[in-house]
Amino acid sequence: MTKVGRPTIRDVAAAAGVSKGTVSFTLNGRAGVAEETRQRVLEAAEALGWTPSHQARALSASRAFAVGLVLAREPELLGADPFFPAFIAGVERTLSDAGQALVLQVVPDAEEEAGYRRLAGDGRVDGVFLLDLRVEEPRIALLRELKLPAVTIARPDGPSDCPAVLVDDRPGIAAAVRHLVELGHRRIAHIAGPARFLHGWTRRRAFEDALADAGLGATAVVEADFSAAGGARATRELLDLAEPPTAIVCANDLMAIAGLSVALEYGIAVPSELSFTGFDNTELSGYVAPPLTTVSTDPYLWGRLAADTLLSLIAGDPVDDVAVPPAALIVRGSTAPAPATH
Amino acid sequence: MTKVGRPTIRDVAAAAGVSKGTVSFTLNGRAGVAEETRQRVLEAAEALGWTPSHQARALSASRAFAVGLVLAREPELLGADPFFPAFIAGVERTLSDAGQALVLQVVPDAEEEAGYRRLAGDGRVDGVFLLDLRVEEPRIALLRELKLPAVTIARPDGPSDCPAVLVDDRPGIAAAVRHLVELGHRRIAHIAGPARFLHGWTRRRAFEDALADAGLGATAVVEADFSAAGGARATRELLDLAEPPTAIVCANDLMAIAGLSVALEYGIAVPSELSFTGFDNTELSGYVAPPLTTVSTDPYLWGRLAADTLLSLIAGDPVDDVAVPPAALIVRGSTAPAPATH
Repeated sequence: MTKVGRPTIRDVAAAAGVSKGTVSFTLNGRAGVAEETRQRVLEAAEALGWTPSHQARALSASRAFAVGLVLAREPELLGADPFFPAFIAGVERTLSDAGQALVLQVVPDAEEEAGYRRLAGDGRVDGVFLLDLRVEEPRIALLRELKLPAVTIARPDGPSDCPAVLVDDRPGIAAAVRHLVELGHRRIAHIAGPARFLHGWTRRRAFEDALADAGLGATAVVEADFSAAGGARATRELLDLAEPPTAIVCANDLMAIAGLSVALEYGIAVPSELSFTGFDNTELSGYVAPPLTTVSTDPYLWGRLAADTLLSLIAGDPVDDVAVPPAALIVRGSTAPAPATH
Repeated sequence: MTKVGRPTIRDVAAAAGVSKGTVSFTLNGRAGVAEETRQRVLEAAEALGWTPSHQARALSASRAFAVGLVLAREPELLGADPFFPAFIAGVERTLSDAGQALVLQVVPDAEEEAGYRRLAGDGRVDGVFLLDLRVEEPRIALLRELKLPAVTIARPDGPSDCPAVLVDDRPGIAAAVRHLVELGHRRIAHIAGPARFLHGWTRRRAFEDALADAGLGATAVVEADFSAAGGARATRELLDLAEPPTAIVCANDLMAIAGLSVALEYGIAVPSELSFTGFDNTELSGYVAPPLTTVSTDPYLWGRLAADTLLSLIAGDPVDDVAVPPAALIVRGSTAPAPATH
């Protein structure tokens, strides 16, 4: 196969058996490349007849070869919410292949703006991810002021000039509600995530809208915090109602899995007396008893796509919003026809 | 209360209502601090009569205000192993309070050394954490060459001049084995983590040593990968043995929780016919049915201590090894007396 056009950094990387990042570091004369590797890269570049594109070189000389993520959350939540590790794993898959690093900064709410200012002011990163979008997102204007390229996860509700990785939780929640309605459930409750997060709020809205489409109202909505303890507490609250629900739609798997064992403790059989649905399709959700009916999202893929988009944006390549495949309902053992009316 | 001695950055931070990091950034004239915040810090410093220590100033001028973590793992494992999010949450708790960032770099095995060289060569970080220690750890010499301050998680088996956060998994595994032996179990198996990781290998050795102390041999040891799927597969392998175990000690909770539902699928009652123990005391382990008997480690605390130690090391303060409280057995519902001999 004859290759057309001038050799790229990717070609040199393949020939030298190293990452694009290492080639880039070597060819820009930056520190931190082992001598043996440097020689190998230079030989591969020469053998291929690689010459630097001046434009690319000027661009890369001032680059940090890192991207940033500022999170205004309690650090403890990094461990409690399975979204983060999967998202970061996806980001790292792309960054690792490109030889780039992730600068992670967890800050108190009041210092979020300072976090972005530092990343930008110090030239520590070439761009950032915007997560946990809020209603009337204030960071869009800040990033414009800081001239920091950014990719948002989901689309902000206000104007934005950042490319977005479009994730829409609503079809998944709607499918879960439809599935339960088709099984004859009429008393359906929701264990929601915190309303100040767009995904907590969006899933709750989707739940209420889908019920309304079926001509039903919510039996109850309890707000929890995406943790197992929160899910257990909320399930108790629902099962203690004078007229408890026959099905519970949870905003994530962790809360639903904790709910399963609360039901067992109450002597309520899942799924024959009570159905549960989760959200996330975490690895464990398929390995609990009964296996959880859940909504399969792919935060790993979001992470990859977000990183791909951000690196393209930084490189000056044309970028568009990227839509990820819609979340799909995965029916397993935790949902069944509604029990006969009591 | 009268305060003795000259005011410190901590005092200025408290008076201005910002983090020590923000004070440090402001007083060093670095970019990235909002004007309003800068004024507030300068006023607080003046009011308190703060004056810079020349030594501290010289040190901080060349600092990155970030520490690094290079992981030679498949990025996917960041999501599968609950250790990471909890450890990183602990690290971030300390870094966040100090206004510092974490530079995370996930690299292929072959580029691990290059990862450290880049962090050091570029001055991107002031120090690093050394995780996933290997038998005959090769990175100690590398970091000495790079003059990069480092803290190791656990103590390497060879010589090391880095302070260590001393974690010892063995007492926890030994306590789990003793607990099962006291319950009358004689056929005890282990679902191990990968042997190339010190913690996979250490837990397996601890299991075999504890059994030997009780005058027993292992019924079987199956190596898995710390994932739910791996734990389910390994549990099947053990239950398919001609003489299956009556108790299974798992190297983490995720594999044990998956094992619980495999037992249910085989029609084997937990704990009356088969006991399970986990390791990690993940939040969910207390919310499954039956709640898991497990070993409580505290990777969140390790993360905090590791970050505290690394920041002290970077600041030139005297540091020692830090021992974390030994892992403790938490007895819950998944262990019971061994079934009568069949």
